[in-house]
Amino acid sequence: MADIYPKQYLMTAGPTPLPPAVSQVMAEPILYHRAPAFVEIYERVLERLPKVFRTENDVLCFASTGSGGLESAVANLTRPGEPALVASCGKFGERWAELCGAFGADLEHVSFEWGEKVDPERVDAALAAMERKPKVVFTTQSETSTGVLNDIAALAEVARGHEALLCVDAVSGLGAAELKQDEWGVDVVVSGSQKSLMCPPGIGFASVSQRALDLAAAGAGGRYYFDWNKTASGQRKSPPDSPFTTAVTLFRALDVALAQIFEEGIDEVFERHAILARGARAGIAGLGLERFGPDDPDANVVTAALLPEGIDGAAVPKTMRDRYGVTAAGGQGHLKGRIVRIAHCGYYGAFDIVIALTALEMALRDCGHDVEPGAGVAAAQRVFSEAGSPAPVG
Amino acid sequence: MADIYPKQYLMTAGPTPLPPAVSQVMAEPILYHRAPAFVEIYERVLERLPKVFRTENDVLCFASTGSGGLESAVANLTRPGEPALVASCGKFGERWAELCGAFGADLEHVSFEWGEKVDPERVDAALAAMERKPKVVFTTQSETSTGVLNDIAALAEVARGHEALLCVDAVSGLGAAELKQDEWGVDVVVSGSQKSLMCPPGIGFASVSQRALDLAAAGAGGRYYFDWNKTASGQRKSPPDSPFTTAVTLFRALDVALAQIFEEGIDEVFERHAILARGARAGIAGLGLERFGPDDPDANVVTAALLPEGIDGAAVPKTMRDRYGVTAAGGQGHLKGRIVRIAHCGYYGAFDIVIALTALEMALRDCGHDVEPGAGVAAAQRVFSEAGSPAPVG
Repeated sequence: MADIYPKQYLMTAGPTPLPPAVSQVMAEPILYHRAPAFVEIYERVLERLPKVFRTENDVLCFASTGSGGLESAVANLTRPGEPALVASCGKFGERWAELCGAFGADLEHVSFEWGEKVDPERVDAALAAMERKPKVVFTTQSETSTGVLNDIAALAEVARGHEALLCVDAVSGLGAAELKQDEWGVDVVVSGSQKSLMCPPGIGFASVSQRALDLAAAGAGGRYYFDWNKTASGQRKSPPDSPFTTAVTLFRALDVALAQIFEEGIDEVFERHAILARGARAGIAGLGLERFGPDDPDANVVTAALLPEGIDGAAVPKTMRDRYGVTAAGGQGHLKGRIVRIAHCGYYGAFDIVIALTALEMALRDCGHDVEPGAGVAAAQRVFSEAGSPAPVG
Repeated sequence: MADIYPKQYLMTAGPTPLPPAVSQVMAEPILYHRAPAFVEIYERVLERLPKVFRTENDVLCFASTGSGGLESAVANLTRPGEPALVASCGKFGERWAELCGAFGADLEHVSFEWGEKVDPERVDAALAAMERKPKVVFTTQSETSTGVLNDIAALAEVARGHEALLCVDAVSGLGAAELKQDEWGVDVVVSGSQKSLMCPPGIGFASVSQRALDLAAAGAGGRYYFDWNKTASGQRKSPPDSPFTTAVTLFRALDVALAQIFEEGIDEVFERHAILARGARAGIAGLGLERFGPDDPDANVVTAALLPEGIDGAAVPKTMRDRYGVTAAGGQGHLKGRIVRIAHCGYYGAFDIVIALTALEMALRDCGHDVEPGAGVAAAQRVFSEAGSPAPVG
């Protein structure tokens, strides 16, 4: 029997697909991390990264995944026995709490249901009620486990009102949903290479204000590889230098990816994400499914659909992958079998959304849920047509 | 004027050159780290790694460089205020001391001159003299800054005699100089992907005995991303699972590199390194230079040559690189300008040594030191001819 699905499509929120030029550059001969040919690349990447983070800060780079970036934040900003506040609404927010626990912080954990947003007012009240004020509030921009986007501008204001720094996990959100670090007054933004930055996993980022560097320096110990001031002082040299071996191959990939992002234009990158997310939301509605989480027009990173009752929900993403070659993520933790998540952060275009929706329609039917063929795609197509295209017709 | 040196040759001890198949696989479409296609690769890599480490332990993998692997060891094995002993003889041994300091250990630092070997008897005496006995002794197998190889079997016996675990930095040595972890009773061996494993930097390893895992578990806190027991419990699942996003692209490279190592044969890999190192040593002697460090026939990772007095030593590696395209490392720290280091750990063959020696001869002459053209190469060639080849003549 002919296999008409020989191609593989990656629709997860990291790793995300790589542009061909990004993949290809990794096949080039490897460079020594202190050779001029590499230092030139390193310098260019360090100069461009802050523009994506919307900041004047140095963006510190670590050979690690985004979770390593989170570890660096907790190792640099918390001290055993000192208070810290975590505001979470899903699996990745809870990771902040686990990290603070592992590093011995006296943790106040303001947690919201998976699928809800973090409510700045409740965070404000929790901070007001704390006897010993925390120096840092940790939260998540785009909660990848649910697709929910938090109001980072409002949370930054709340933290500022209590003289705390705000430290944000933007691992999946950076470059897909707007986060104006300096304008909003966010002290620390952590991210990773494998989402909107269109690279493989293996570089972790921490965009760190001078205030945060000072707080880190005041509480020495408990880190070395992840020490922010050590890395900052290397990166500030001219030419910049890394205290440890750089993940040179991934940096070359990042250099090419950043060149593509700058060529497209950062504003246009955000706009593309917004339109694709709108298409995904329309498609899910067109299929007669509910979106999981609040109706938020800015949640442009991952779109989660609530699966219909009465079918084996976990079978839906499995069927999409095993039968149709489309890898989308199901739910994590207690959302397993309840949702399917279509990611559109990074190197995605309109037809990727069409593929994901088509595979979802077909898998739903295979799993016993009646869907009209093309209903989701039709709705998405209308969104895309309305959005227009920079290229002329004909 | 014609440029007759258009090619670049990487002769540093990491990053090291990659075999073409290793480079090429990174240009393949990226895989989701929880997809069956990747899990199969992950499982195969985890099964093969212990054979290179000569151990039955799980080899824990982190998205980090080798220095991240070192940080994981100190974060898991030391506690603030608890005694630890570091035995160092160069820059990387001193990194252990800096790490222990950063993590607040009560440090006993037995340091030897750069270029000397760690003397097991002095370590034994230092352990005997310590009032509070350390649970762990940290040392370095191949000290990349000088090319010196330490006697790990003897140091393991010394540590055992004082009921301490031995934790070895084998970042540059693993797979190039023999380290029989289980036979010698070494509890922890840390390494990285970018040396003899013929991969780009970005995967850190810790091969950890159950005793070391138990010690780590007994002292909780101070790590999460680098927590050994968390990673071990993921890797021991069937199929294995990583608690964090895996550096999937680098793992595919590692899978291909390990396949090549197994095809060549691990014993043959060690033998190749031994012959190349012998050739490099003979070449340096043929040039009339002294080797830096003790005359050790097993130091097969990096060969350091002492540069002649009266010339600008730092100009030698610079000339090799800028004029001839051969990147070899000079000295670090106070050895800057005094030595040049030719690495031969990883994907190297006899003609790479020929190139390195030729470039060194030419650069020495350029820098005003009289060398007979071909004197080093001739000496190396004799070593290679004597060693023979598995292929027939004619």
